[in-house]
Order: sequence, then C-alpha cells, then structure tokens
Amino acid sequence: MASRIPAAVLAATGSVGQRFIQLLDGHPWFEVVAVTGSERSAGAYYGEACHWVLPEPMPEWAKRLKVTATEELDMDLPLIFSALPASVARTAEPEFARRHAVVCSNASAFRMDPYVPILLPEVNPDHITVLDRQRQVHGWKGAIVTNSNCTSTGMTVALKALQEQFGLRKVLAVSMQAISGAGYPGVASLDILDNVIPYIAGEEEKVEAESCKMLGHVAEGQIRPAEFQVSAHTNRVAVSDGHLVCLSVELERQASVEEAGLALQAYQAPEPSRDLPSAPCPVIAVRSEPDRPQPRLDRMAGRGMTTTVGRLRPDPLFHLKMVVLSHNTIRGAAGGSIYNAELLYSLGILG
Amino acid sequence: MASRIPAAVLAATGSVGQRFIQLLDGHPWFEVVAVTGSERSAGAYYGEACHWVLPEPMPEWAKRLKVTATEELDMDLPLIFSALPASVARTAEPEFARRHAVVCSNASAFRMDPYVPILLPEVNPDHITVLDRQRQVHGWKGAIVTNSNCTSTGMTVALKALQEQFGLRKVLAVSMQAISGAGYPGVASLDILDNVIPYIAGEEEKVEAESCKMLGHVAEGQIRPAEFQVSAHTNRVAVSDGHLVCLSVELERQASVEEAGLALQAYQAPEPSRDLPSAPCPVIAVRSEPDRPQPRLDRMAGRGMTTTVGRLRPDPLFHLKMVVLSHNTIRGAAGGSIYNAELLYSLGILG
Amino acid sequence: MASRIPAAVLAATGSVGQRFIQLLDGHPWFEVVAVTGSERSAGAYYGEACHWVLPEPMPEWAKRLKVTATEELDMDLPLIFSALPASVARTAEPEFARRHAVVCSNASAFRMDPYVPILLPEVNPDHITVLDRQRQVHGWKGAIVTNSNCTSTGMTVALKALQEQFGLRKVLAVSMQAISGAGYPGVASLDILDNVIPYIAGEEEKVEAESCKMLGHVAEGQIRPAEFQVSAHTNRVAVSDGHLVCLSVELERQASVEEAGLALQAYQAPEPSRDLPSAPCPVIAVRSEPDRPQPRLDRMAGRGMTTTVGRLRPDPLFHLKMVVLSHNTIRGAAGGSIYNAELLYSLGILG
Amino acid sequence: MASRIPAAVLAATGSVGQRFIQLLDGHPWFEVVAVTGSERSAGAYYGEACHWVLPEPMPEWAKRLKVTATEELDMDLPLIFSALPASVARTAEPEFARRHAVVCSNASAFRMDPYVPILLPEVNPDHITVLDRQRQVHGWKGAIVTNSNCTSTGMTVALKALQEQFGLRKVLAVSMQAISGAGYPGVASLDILDNVIPYIAGEEEKVEAESCKMLGHVAEGQIRPAEFQVSAHTNRVAVSDGHLVCLSVELERQASVEEAGLALQAYQAPEPSRDLPSAPCPVIAVRSEPDRPQPRLDRMAGRGMTTTVGRLRPDPLFHLKMVVLSHNTIRGAAGGSIYNAELLYSLGILG
Repeated sequence: MASRIPAAVLAATGSVGQRFIQLLDGHPWFEVVAVTGSERSAGAYYGEACHWVLPEPMPEWAKRLKVTATEELDMDLPLIFSALPASVARTAEPEFARRHAVVCSNASAFRMDPYVPILLPEVNPDHITVLDRQRQVHGWKGAIVTNSNCTSTGMTVALKALQEQFGLRKVLAVSMQAISGAGYPGVASLDILDNVIPYIAGEEEKVEAESCKMLGHVAEGQIRPAEFQVSAHTNRVAVSDGHLVCLSVELERQASVEEAGLALQAYQAPEPSRDLPSAPCPVIAVRSEPDRPQPRLDRMAGRGMTTTVGRLRPDPLFHLKMVVLSHNTIRGAAGGSIYNAELLYSLGILG
Repeated sequence: MASRIPAAVLAATGSVGQRFIQLLDGHPWFEVVAVTGSERSAGAYYGEACHWVLPEPMPEWAKRLKVTATEELDMDLPLIFSALPASVARTAEPEFARRHAVVCSNASAFRMDPYVPILLPEVNPDHITVLDRQRQVHGWKGAIVTNSNCTSTGMTVALKALQEQFGLRKVLAVSMQAISGAGYPGVASLDILDNVIPYIAGEEEKVEAESCKMLGHVAEGQIRPAEFQVSAHTNRVAVSDGHLVCLSVELERQASVEEAGLALQAYQAPEPSRDLPSAPCPVIAVRSEPDRPQPRLDRMAGRGMTTTVGRLRPDPLFHLKMVVLSHNTIRGAAGGSIYNAELLYSLGILG
Repeated sequence: MASRIPAAVLAATGSVGQRFIQLLDGHPWFEVVAVTGSERSAGAYYGEACHWVLPEPMPEWAKRLKVTATEELDMDLPLIFSALPASVARTAEPEFARRHAVVCSNASAFRMDPYVPILLPEVNPDHITVLDRQRQVHGWKGAIVTNSNCTSTGMTVALKALQEQFGLRKVLAVSMQAISGAGYPGVASLDILDNVIPYIAGEEEKVEAESCKMLGHVAEGQIRPAEFQVSAHTNRVAVSDGHLVCLSVELERQASVEEAGLALQAYQAPEPSRDLPSAPCPVIAVRSEPDRPQPRLDRMAGRGMTTTVGRLRPDPLFHLKMVVLSHNTIRGAAGGSIYNAELLYSLGILG
Repeated sequence: MASRIPAAVLAATGSVGQRFIQLLDGHPWFEVVAVTGSERSAGAYYGEACHWVLPEPMPEWAKRLKVTATEELDMDLPLIFSALPASVARTAEPEFARRHAVVCSNASAFRMDPYVPILLPEVNPDHITVLDRQRQVHGWKGAIVTNSNCTSTGMTVALKALQEQFGLRKVLAVSMQAISGAGYPGVASLDILDNVIPYIAGEEEKVEAESCKMLGHVAEGQIRPAEFQVSAHTNRVAVSDGHLVCLSVELERQASVEEAGLALQAYQAPEPSRDLPSAPCPVIAVRSEPDRPQPRLDRMAGRGMTTTVGRLRPDPLFHLKMVVLSHNTIRGAAGGSIYNAELLYSLGILG
C-alpha cells in the first residue's frame, strides 16, 4: 500500500472525525497522514488529544499522528476529509479547494451551492459533472464534494429507487435520530434519558432541501433540485447510532406495495459506484418482518453502508408508508465521504 | 365520603389497573370496593398479588382488598372500571352491562361499536346521547363507555380545537410511544434499550379509526365518524410514560400558526365536562419553546390530564405541523376512564 | 408570609440551583429574593436565562427574578444557599460569611475544614456547636454550613443508626449514581447510554472522608472524624435521579439482620431536627421486599428526603450487607441545604 | 470442513442459544447439525421459530435447521452445547452424558457437583482431570463440563492472575450486570429504564461459590474449592451486554498497584488452552485510563473473550480495588462453552 493517496482528516478528534479514522484504517487507496483539531489539542498526539468514543479500538498508527491546527495544515495534500462544523468549514474548506485538494466534506456549509454536489454515489454520481463549473465559478483548482445530512441520506437512497420507477410527488418524513448525530459531548444525558427531544436545530430545513437537490438533475452546469415536495419532522431519541425515518410517499404513478418492494430490492448503484471499496452491498435491504428495521439490529447492515427499508404498506393519505434506517455516522457521515472520495478517485478526478 | 359509589377495577394488577387504583385513591365520588385479577392471583390480597410498578406508593386500603376472578365479581356493583385485555373484555364487559352496571372501559373491544361512545369529556360529551340506543340494541340495563387508545387521545384533543375553528381534511400522525403503554412486563428491555421498535400491533388501525369516530357526530342514535383522512405510523421508544405524536394537518380553511395557536390555547371543555374532579386544567397547554413538549418534562402537566402542544409551524405539504404530548396511562387510560365516569355521574347516568 | 427571611440562591441556573428554586417555592420561613448565575446570564430574567430541566414547572415568581453575577449580590442578605462549583465557592462563600450571612452550601470547598460542619440534621445536629470557633478562627460574623456529597448522604444516615446501636468498624461502599449528580449538561449521553462509567473524579475520596467526619464528634471546638474505615467505589449509571449504594458493614458489636433492621427502622432524628418543614418522614424507610430499594420507585420516598434501606442480609466477610437509596438532588443536595437552614433558624442561629 | 464434529445446541432459540449459533458459524472444528427448543417451536424451522435478538444476522444454515424437542434429539451426537434452564438441565443433560456425548453446559444444574468442572480454559484446565471420576461416580460414558455463571467469569480470570502471584484472602465483589444475562424476554423494560434493580435471584450465592471452586484444586479425583472468602452484591443495570464488577481484594502477600498490574498483564493461559480458536487474546487487557473498562467500549475486546481490568488502586480496607469487565453472553456463556469444547477436543477427550 506504498502508493496510497495521502489524506488529512479535519476535526479528527470529534465523533465524526473518529469514524473517519476508524473507517480509513487499512483503506486500500487512501492513507491518513495528517489530522487537525482545536487549538487546545494542537501539538499533542492524536492518541492523547482524542477522547475516543467508539467501541472499535483506536488504530495504532492514529495514536502517533500529531494533531495540527486546521489553518496550519500542509496545503498540498490532494485529499481532505472534513468533519468541521459548518461555521468553520465555510472559510476553511475553500482554502484547500483553492489549491488542488479535493475536499470530501461532511459539513453543511456548501451543500446548497448549486455547483457543489451533495453526492451519494449509489444515487447521483452524475452530479459530479458540475465540478468543472464549480472550478470556474469559484476559481478553485481542487473541488468540494459534500455528503448529505445524516437524516437525508437513507431516505434519499430509498426515494431514488422509487423515483426512478414511479416518480415522486410528495414525501412526509418523520425522523427518530441517534445521539451520535449530535457529536460529542452533544446531547446531555439528562435531556434524553426517559425522553424524546422533538427538535433538532436546522435539521428539518436540511432534510427538506437536500433530498430534493440530491434527486435533482444537472442542467447548464448546475444542480437543479427535483420538484417533489418534502415535509420533515425531526426528533432525537435515546439510540446510540442509526437514524430511523418514517416515510409517507405519494408517487407520480401509483405503485402497489409489491411493486415498490421489488423496485427497492432491485435497485442497484449506477455503474461507476458499484464496486468501490465502501460500496454498500446490497444498496437497499428490504425487510419483510413486521417490526423491522430497528436501529440496534439493522444499523450495521452492509458494514453500516446499506440502507434498510421495511414496513412497506399502503398509506390512506398518500400511496405508501415505509420505515427507513441508515447508520448516521457511517453511511450518513464519514463512510459516505469516503465512498465519495472513492468514486472521485475511480473516475480519475482525484490524485 | 360515606356515600361514595362503590366501584370495581377489573384487571387491577396490571399496569393500567394500578393506575386506576392510584388515581382513585381519595376520589370524592367513587370508592374501589373490589378488584379482579387473573386466576393465579385470585384469593390473594391485592398487596401481595400485585407487582406494583408505580413510583407512587400503593394505597393502604388497596393492599387489603381481596383479588377475585373477574367472572366471580359481584354483579350488582353500579360502576366498573375495566383494564381488561380486549379479548377478555369482549365477553366480560357485556355481562356487567347486561345488569345495571356502567362499565368505563379502557379496552378496545367495543370501541368501534356505533352505539358505544369513545368518550373524551373535553371533546365529545354529546356522544353520550347514544347510550339509549345502546341499551335498546344490546339489551343492556347498564352501559359500556370506552376511552380511546392512548395514542389517539392527545392528538384528538388537539384536533378537536382545530376542527371546531377551521375544519379538518387530512392528518398524518407519527407516534413515539412510551413502554408503559404495553403493560407489564410488556416490552422486553433487550428490545428497547438503544433502540426504537417501529411497530405496535394493531395500533395504526386504531389511531386512524378512533380519532375519526371521536370527532364525528351523533345521528339517528349512532355515532358517525368524521370524514377527514388519517394516516398513522406508530413507534415504541425508550420512554417510561408519555406518548408524543408528530402531526401534519390539512385544514378545511387554512389557518396561520398564530390562529391555530390561539384556537388551541382558547379551547375549553364543553360545559358538562369542565369542573369535574379529573378535568384537565388547562385542557391544552401550548408551549412556545422550540423544543417542547418533551415526555419527561411535560407528561405530568395538569396532573397528567392536560394535552400539551408545541412546535406549531407551517407544513410545506399540508397546513400545519405540530407536536402533541399526552400521558398515556393517566389521560390516555385510567385517568380518562375515571373522567368519563365523573361525566356520567354528573349527568345522572350513573348511580 | 410577609416576614419570611430573604435568601439568595447562588448558581441558581444549574441543576442543583433549580432544585433550590423548586423546593423553596412556598417555603414557610424563607423567601428567595435574589439569584446569581454566570456572567453570561447576568442581567437576564431567571425565566429566560435558565434552561430548566425539572419536570416540576418553574415557579412564576422565579421567572421574574433578575439574575445577577455572584460577586455583585447584595452582601446584607442573612441567608445564602450556594450551589456554586467548589472552585468558585472557595473564594465567594467566605465573602458572604465575613458579613453576617449564613451560607448553607452544597459545595465541597469547605467540607473538610474542621470548623465547618457537614450537617445532616437527622444525624449530627450537635456539630453546629463548632460555629462559634468557626467565627473566631475565620473572623466571620456569619457562618458556613455545608451539606455532604450526594453519595455520602444516604449511606451516612443509615450508618448513623447502626453506629448508635452497634458501633462501626469497617464500611465498604459501592455506588451507582444518577446523572443529575453531575449537573447540567453534565454527563454526555453517548457516555452513559447502554453503559456504566466506573469512575467519578474525586468522588471516592469525598465519600471516604465525609462519612467519617459526619459520624465523628465535636471536641475542643473542632469536629473529629469517627475512626471506622471506609472504602468506596463510585460508578455512574443511566438513572436520572437517586443514588444507590451497596454497603458491606462490619460493626463493633455484631448484630443480626433483625436487630439491624429494627435499629434502622426505629431511628429518629435528634430532637431539634424532628419537626422542621423539610424533615424526612420517616428518616429511614426499611423495605423487606427482596428487590428494593430501586431508584425509579423509591427516590421520592418522604418527598425525596427519606433514606431507603433494603436487602439487609448477612455478609460472609463483614457482618451485614444492605442497599441504601437517597435522592441525590433533594436529600443529597438542595433539600439537604434547606433542611440545614431550617435547623439553624429553629435554633436561633439564623436571622 | 467435511469432517467437523457434529454438535447440537439445546435451547437454541433463547438468547444464549442464539449466541451459540452465531459464534459457531464457520467454526473450524464443530458443526451444528441439530437444535432443540420448547415444544411450541418443535417442528418449525429455526429461522421461523426463533425471535433473533442479535445484531449479527442469523446464519443461513441455521435458518434451515428443524427445531426438535430436547427429549427427541438424536442421542448419538458426540457434542452437546446446552443453554437449557437449570431445572431442565438437571434431568436432560445426564441423559446425553449417559451415552457418549460430551455436554458443554451453560446451565448451573451441575456446577457445584465436585466431579463436574466449572471450566475456564485460561484458568483451570487441570480441573478436567476429574472427568474420569465423574464417569465412574455417575456411570456416564460421556461427560458434563460447565462454564461458570456470567458474573463469576471475568472476576475469576482476574483473581487467578493475582492468586498465582500473591495468594487470595478476601474478595468483595459488586456487580453491575447487563440485561442480556437474564435471557429473552428477561428483564421488563419498565423495570430497568431509568432504574437499577439491586437484586438477581440466586446470583450472589453462585458468585460466592463458583469463584472459589474454579480457583480450587483437584485432590483425590474431586475439585476442592479455594479457601479465600467472597462476598457478592449483584445488581442489574440498563446495559445490553457486558458485566462490570467492582472488586476489593485482600491478598495473602500484599502487592503494590504496579505489581498487581504487571501480574494481570503478564497472565497467560496454561499451555493447552493457549492457541485454541476461541482463546482470548490477550487473556487480560489492563487499561490505564481512569475511567475504563466501560461496557459499551470494552465488551468486545478480544472478540468478546478478553477480560478487561482497570482502575487498579489501593484499597483503604483491603489491599487493592479494581474494576473488571467481561462479555456476559460471549466469554460468560456461549463463547465460554465453545472454548471449553475446544479444549476438550484438543486434549482428545471429545470425538
């Protein structure tokens, strides 16, 4: 693995940053050579600076990396994974894109830029074609590619399979989201034990906008959002990992439960995204038991990259009801960014 | 309190039965003189037969009641509170109604009978007028009055306030329900710790049918369900008490968030239901904080009888989104049945 | 209640501070007229500055109090309840004691000062006699009286009853502590969901030292700790309120389980502490069920002031094993400080 | 793997039974060819009869096994893994041992028989030498070998390392045990959410007796328990998997924290147990962080077979305090039985 592409992880000490480190351990194409953290942790070894919250042990190589401040990172790295908060990402990520780095970002800062794809390789790899215009418009030699909000991810994968076959008109989505989605320390235990918090700041707006953008198309070098309507309610529940979403969907062309099940089950990632190291297998797992998916039992399907759909049934108001589960820090965050980088690499855009 | 009406609690050792006992402790009008339980517990004192799961201590008088089998209960009691499972209620409750007892039931067995009201005193006290036909049709001297499914309760109270002012067209409801709703032992801890179960058998059908019936009207001695459409997703979460429901509502006449908030806040119980001992005060509490209601903080509003509504906001698909909370074993079960009995008593129907 | 003693609550916006406000609502002797908070919240109304985490609603009068910075508080108030962190308490509390205020403190800063009582009115009201020397030594006109660490509290009450009858030689204590003991936001939810944290910084040392001090005696104007030995293991578990402690106890004079049970059950607070508004009733509740006390079921015994003891049984190594439960933010924190103030008031030391 | 030893799993549909199935998937030496269950499930396919509660998916081969009643199982299988409840094991397991089967049992029924080893291969493989006498005394051609109670397991591994170097005199153990230890459905969610249950029926007696037996020696064909004294408190907490035990230990020869840490870290399984497929690697992981081990982070150490020890520190009463963690359904149950079978196989006792 001598010739792996050197990469940095920004905000590597946080909970999504840790997932990047854990998932990149032994990656065949990418090698983490630098990690950044807050000023407080800059200068320390990652093994000391990081309060590791994952059950998987911290890789030995990671312990020995020196944490640098994000603004002091070597600017010539070709690949940047960003777990920065949006406010910091807004100024820091373009610094890297301006040089020749490709930034695979988990931050929301540039997601709604019409020249920046919110990329799900199994859904919209064609959105990569906007990168040329992105470079022109922003004057970047590199690029920024984002992954979606962790709640939008799973539902968009499921909706794509339905959109392709039947078209989409209306989507009502109600999430029950894991605490790891709020980072670390994140949600206070007093707020979530024996409780539900029916509010996550900014989340409903993201879900409503991002799913339409991801399911849209590229025209004149821009991403044009799809025109179906989305309404989202987002809630925090006492689950460690795995976002569950109840969906009510109205299609353009009505489908039976059986037809929808077949469409979901048969859905395949477009060609360039299929055989990448992080590609989900299957893309969508359809469960027929009455009480699945469940976060504790299904979040690790396909090593955390598969979207699980269950409880497909008719909806008295719309056409279909279903429940979708996706691992929020793997498919919905770090794993998604890595999958994006793999797609870019396989297409020759990176490195 | 010498002349209180003697009452029995059926299935008094279960979790809803325990709430009946706890809430009837010191009741000004009703006195529990008999409790029934399974054959296994028959003959034992309630204090021994019952695995008490409430934080409030078991009342001393209750400890000394002898548990009898339901079928051996004195048939001449005027008031029966039933926490029986539906399958048992179907045959046992009519036995009491046939004599002169008024059965205030938490069971679902007769809820969809057009001559049996699903009674929420703050919503539909006029449904009591079907009792005459009920007696004729079924040949009963007493009566059966049910309270609604615990999930339907809070949302129906909120919907009533909107229906009255603006009319209702469509309702999409997604619940996050407490484990106490499943009785004791009920949900296995392995199934709910770090998890959500996106399925509760029979619950979605109940929510869809009961809310329409409760918001319907009486015509020709029958209850005719209201004609708006309801779609429900029901989920179990790791909360002890308090069912939370995310609602998306389409009205007949569009209302702004402010108008809806005022309608909810101003809603009062119809006259006969207002000053009863268990009447909620207020009927609806409207919270303006962005993150309320929450089960742990708001379930005991109005001693567990108030319905709390929050997060009123526009819905991109329908008109309004909101979150509703109701205590499932108080307002949604035992407390609701007691409130029903109080209404019947105050109207001279009971005793 | 026109002539109630005016009191301030320091650090009133935190979780213990909130308990002070909630428990002092309607207090017959004390009236909260001032609250302090961090610089960030100074100047705002308490109703806005405080993220209220208690199920009991915030009292209306509290909402309208202006939060001041602790150092700008009126120095002439006779009664100060302190929920300050130890580091701040160390300098701030003597400022008030220097004037004529009596500071009833929940902070650990002065607990190990031999002239400052760690006061449990039902255990060691005689320790108040050191206050004269306290004033001399420290040059204060007022006084500082502390309550104990929340984990030491319940076990010390139980140990007192045994010490009085049988003497104490060795105590091994293993706690399972509620998250509210760490304040708000306190424990991160990711750290405690589906987990136990077998460590609480500084806690074991406090438990080992404070219980001996509280069970000690006054000699030559100082408090001399009792001489039995204590070893503590402290753990954090996913419980909202209520600290559970497993105790193994070696007595000076061996007692049977029955004798110990009688001693615990018969224990009464010394005369001056018996009829105060916050006095626990009973002081100790002894449960005979095999599986009690439990935090969810027993923490509110005696309105949160009673210590519950159960599972009394022989210990193969020592003499007795038992389990002790105490509400950590009521008896173990705010309620304890208020009880202390009541004792001082009733003895004419305050106001 | 054509020549793997055919094995049956008794009570395969329960939670420990499921762990047997999951851990035996792809086992190099043993092949599950039969599974037994309750009469209710007999005749059905395992895939249908079993309510699978593990996050790892059910192996395909297991789905296609027919469940038989335990008493109808083919008696000529050489290897039986038993997850039977003790009451059933008492009569069923000897039936198999009477023929030539080796029963590796998780049940407590025969653990205290002086001719039946409670076997931990990394601790007491020499206890296997009692099997000859077992066969004589009981008239069996096969054998019964048990693994210990899930709570005794981890602490006994740690105590063994200390016993070998320093001798043991007194052990006080306080457990915080996972809900999976109670099987499925096991602990009711209402009993453990926001709660601790300070009692597990029969558990303390098992911990006190089994740890002494396992650390004893063989003399005259019997196992003689070690003579140190143990006192146990056992508690159930809201953790899915992983039993945590706080230990206070008095040694025969006092050891410093450093010496004890080295002894634990250096501990190796005796020769015959070292390189077996399920051998823990390392046997004991010693953590130096102040707040480890934690169930969520450390239970899967060594694929769930490693014992993790942390918080080594002096004990004011005894010599040492520490915290021990062990995965209760892997090392403490199914994985332990499989490890036992591997040891027996490698020694030529089986098959």
